[in-house]
Amino acid sequence: MLHFADRLIMKIKEKGNPVAVGLDLQLDRFPEELKNELTIEAKLSAVTVTRVLESFGKAIMDGVADLVPAIKMQLAYFEQYGIAGMQAMANLCDYAKSLDLVVIADGKRNDIESTANAYADAYLGEVNLKGSDFKGFGFDALTVNPYLGLDGIKPFVEVGRNYGKGIFVLVKTSNPSSRDFQDLYLQDGIRNFEYMAHCVESWGADEIGAMGFSLVGAVVGATNQKDLKRMREMMPNTIFLMPGYGVQGATADMLKEAFTPDGLGVLVNSSRAIIYAHEQNPNLSFVEAARKATIAMCEDIKHVLKS
Amino acid sequence: MLHFADRLIMKIKEKGNPVAVGLDLQLDRFPEELKNELTIEAKLSAVTVTRVLESFGKAIMDGVADLVPAIKMQLAYFEQYGIAGMQAMANLCDYAKSLDLVVIADGKRNDIESTANAYADAYLGEVNLKGSDFKGFGFDALTVNPYLGLDGIKPFVEVGRNYGKGIFVLVKTSNPSSRDFQDLYLQDGIRNFEYMAHCVESWGADEIGAMGFSLVGAVVGATNQKDLKRMREMMPNTIFLMPGYGVQGATADMLKEAFTPDGLGVLVNSSRAIIYAHEQNPNLSFVEAARKATIAMCEDIKHVLKS
Repeated sequence: MLHFADRLIMKIKEKGNPVAVGLDLQLDRFPEELKNELTIEAKLSAVTVTRVLESFGKAIMDGVADLVPAIKMQLAYFEQYGIAGMQAMANLCDYAKSLDLVVIADGKRNDIESTANAYADAYLGEVNLKGSDFKGFGFDALTVNPYLGLDGIKPFVEVGRNYGKGIFVLVKTSNPSSRDFQDLYLQDGIRNFEYMAHCVESWGADEIGAMGFSLVGAVVGATNQKDLKRMREMMPNTIFLMPGYGVQGATADMLKEAFTPDGLGVLVNSSRAIIYAHEQNPNLSFVEAARKATIAMCEDIKHVLKS
Repeated sequence: MLHFADRLIMKIKEKGNPVAVGLDLQLDRFPEELKNELTIEAKLSAVTVTRVLESFGKAIMDGVADLVPAIKMQLAYFEQYGIAGMQAMANLCDYAKSLDLVVIADGKRNDIESTANAYADAYLGEVNLKGSDFKGFGFDALTVNPYLGLDGIKPFVEVGRNYGKGIFVLVKTSNPSSRDFQDLYLQDGIRNFEYMAHCVESWGADEIGAMGFSLVGAVVGATNQKDLKRMREMMPNTIFLMPGYGVQGATADMLKEAFTPDGLGVLVNSSRAIIYAHEQNPNLSFVEAARKATIAMCEDIKHVLKS
């Protein structure tokens, strides 16, 4: 069984860039031809909602699968469509795996140990439901919120170790209010997010793969340029999942210090700027627009890594 | 439209106790008669999984609906059973509402503002899916993790205000590792969870109902006895959702200082000690055992409130 970090780093090397395309699926931003499918039935059925979400997500993945190593699926956007959305989530996760993409569930799950176990089994491991087809959603990685401390993290690490999966622990998020709490100074002179960075590196210390990275990754918002150097120093063996590029305002230049000296250890995510690129490119199909935006992002980041 | 806190406090007064029964559904702990239903099919279907989860949850609710004001559903335990579990969750939420129980989704959701909006719509508000039967899961309240700061909280508060719903923000959790991060001292001499208590009270300051409590509640583990007095002082207008009673070790005596002077402002949850009480009471049906355990817990807490 391949270690999660090894698999992700190999995929990044194979594709030649560290970009993850984020599926933040909002039906009202889908192209007209797909939105129209929602209006055919007098009473919109769950099956149709699932099918339209799936059509969009599969088309986007088909359009970018040769370009990028990973897909990030934002669970909230599936949950908002109820059972129909969750079914689409499950199907799109399977589809991502059929394309050999690393598929990350962005669910920011967290709970006490017994409950964290259930989340870990559900999203990364195996569910004991004898005789059933359902064995768990089977994502490759899950984002996790660390507010509850180590006993809420351990179940995810154990499942990750046993199933070749990974987690990305929120350290410094990309939103403006991340400073409210994460930037508070502790009595020993470091900020909350620096304390968390220290935790993440230590939680992963026994979980390092052959390529030098641990299965315990960190979410580090690309919008926090001034802290990236410090984050990399504090977490030399940690893969950073970096949201915030694109719609949230981060540029490739701003990311540079997040990479390790050999240009690795980072997965940069962009969601809305890629999957809804058709809104800015009315002459292209939504897949062509997404592909074009993905290529531009990959080039942008490769250029900065070379400079 | 009734304010969430008013509705919850009225229900607590009506039932004469502040107990929430927690549905942490684990099929392998179900009574034999229900577990047997999982073995009839050669290949266990999703429909059967949903039906068995529902049978158990409905029976428990039928058994305690006249006793308690609220039900807490732990989302992880539904998610672990995939679509079948989520369907049971939706059905059991509807069933709780049909019994006029306040129904809380314990999902500890959290994200940046745009995504928190999707969670808020999905669990508390209304989803814009024109023509579909699905309008959102429609829980009365949701637990929320505050690591991302105010912009990740605001969408829940807005939806709460517009739909008569509430949230419970994690302040001090019931698990042993809650001390890892939540108990760290900040430079101004308070601990992280005290800072968060201050935030919660201020986030709810403009959201106070007629009975003096805000729609922004706090999760305060019943296991943190020594800090409860301080928590109540810092959050006089905040309803505490208190897990930790029962299996996690907290007793009614330990909770006393969490209540307001008039004996309100608290909702104490117990999950496994109630719903799996049949494991300790082989002579009772699982519903009778749960009812007996609930009555004992209600008496226990009422006794302490009177003393």
